[in-house]
Amino acid sequence: MPYINIQITREGTAPGRNAVTAEEKAALIKGASQLMLDVLNKPFDSTFVVIDEVDPDNWGWGGLPALEFRKQREASRR
Amino acid sequence: MPYINIQITREGTAPGRNAVTAEEKAALIKGASQLMLDVLNKPFDSTFVVIDEVDPDNWGWGGLPALEFRKQREASRR
Amino acid sequence: MPYINIQITREGTAPGRNAVTAEEKAALIKGASQLMLDVLNKPFDSTFVVIDEVDPDNWGWGGLPALEFRKQREASRR
Amino acid sequence: MPYINIQITREGTAPGRNAVTAEEKAALIKGASQLMLDVLNKPFDSTFVVIDEVDPDNWGWGGLPALEFRKQREASRR
Amino acid sequence: MPYINIQITREGTAPGRNAVTAEEKAALIKGASQLMLDVLNKPFDSTFVVIDEVDPDNWGWGGLPALEFRKQREASRR
Amino acid sequence: MPYINIQITREGTAPGRNAVTAEEKAALIKGASQLMLDVLNKPFDSTFVVIDEVDPDNWGWGGLPALEFRKQREASRR
Repeated sequence: MPYINIQITREGTAPGRNAVTAEEKAALIKGASQLMLDVLNKPFDSTFVVIDEVDPDNWGWGGLPALEFRKQREASRR
Repeated sequence: MPYINIQITREGTAPGRNAVTAEEKAALIKGASQLMLDVLNKPFDSTFVVIDEVDPDNWGWGGLPALEFRKQREASRR
Repeated sequence: MPYINIQITREGTAPGRNAVTAEEKAALIKGASQLMLDVLNKPFDSTFVVIDEVDPDNWGWGGLPALEFRKQREASRR
Repeated sequence: MPYINIQITREGTAPGRNAVTAEEKAALIKGASQLMLDVLNKPFDSTFVVIDEVDPDNWGWGGLPALEFRKQREASRR
Repeated sequence: MPYINIQITREGTAPGRNAVTAEEKAALIKGASQLMLDVLNKPFDSTFVVIDEVDPDNWGWGGLPALEFRKQREASRR
Repeated sequence: MPYINIQITREGTAPGRNAVTAEEKAALIKGASQLMLDVLNKPFDSTFVVIDEVDPDNWGWGGLPALEFRKQREASRR
């Protein structure tokens, strides 16, 4: 009876997109359900998956809004 | 001091509606708070209820987006 | 497809008990599932309920560990 | 590796505003991350903060939608 | 910056075990992180996974504690 | 009416300790409540804080159980 909550920032995976697509969401749902079957032997119909898309302003990492932190991090890796 | 989080798909309970109404939300809040009082003797003012409405594309069941799973399930029951 | 998470402090509802009983947990599960059926017309087999019992030291209210806050509050009501 | 989830009602902190500002969100992220560093010695880059803004209709307190409860409470304090 | 919360019942996957093993937990962590990389292109070091093991008494499905529901369901399928 | 959930690994902040102390938990509760007052003007008695202590085996980062990831990371920084 697994319940899986996936929290991600609301942003696209390719230029020109600003959100995860329905296909990508379906792939997350399928993959997470498959993982429960493979590792814990849980049948598909006993697994719930809930995806939360979070505005980037609402996600913090490194003490900063996530997009600022990411920029800072990339700059420091150069 | 209970905290209750209710996650539901964002959809209507009657034809022509596409979301839970404010009255239905108030009924969920009242019912969940009453349950805490009845079973655990918790006074109303110590219970928080938070309702999350989740886009149906973001909810997975049976390895599929929830609406697809529901259709499949209904078909198989016929 | 509701998912309901009930968070409560780990403590008894009667003198001499230090935790919620299995019967009380079953009543919470039944009541929460019934609420989804009554208000949103969700069948029992599409509702998950997860109860989290939280150590009272780990629950804060009023800026204090919950048991301290409760004592303070009761004192101020006298 | 702390993860902090802050749930608040979606409303402004000053007249004429109807939501928390980006500056306030950044202050929540910074303050929560600082708290993990000060109390638990967790470096900034190992702390995630996720802010959920909840529609006031979806938040219950005292058995009522939160805004109704607040009004009632203020009235009773007069 | 995904955060994934996996909630499962605390029980073994083979006779004689009463909990998920450390190896199974590592497989859940690896699989969930890989899914974020494959579908959303998120690097491993930006994904957190938190596994919650829930006592079967604390998990409800079908209006019943989960183990009772499972027994009933299996009986009805015969 | 904020609700704050703080998830941390169950481990000590000093040699010889294997868990967060009650004093540290009280400091987290106080600090998080103060933050809601300072940034959002929320009174102490409307803020709930719930601390979840997670077994290190149950926390994943970088595709690995968190303690393994941390070791690997420290080694790579030398």
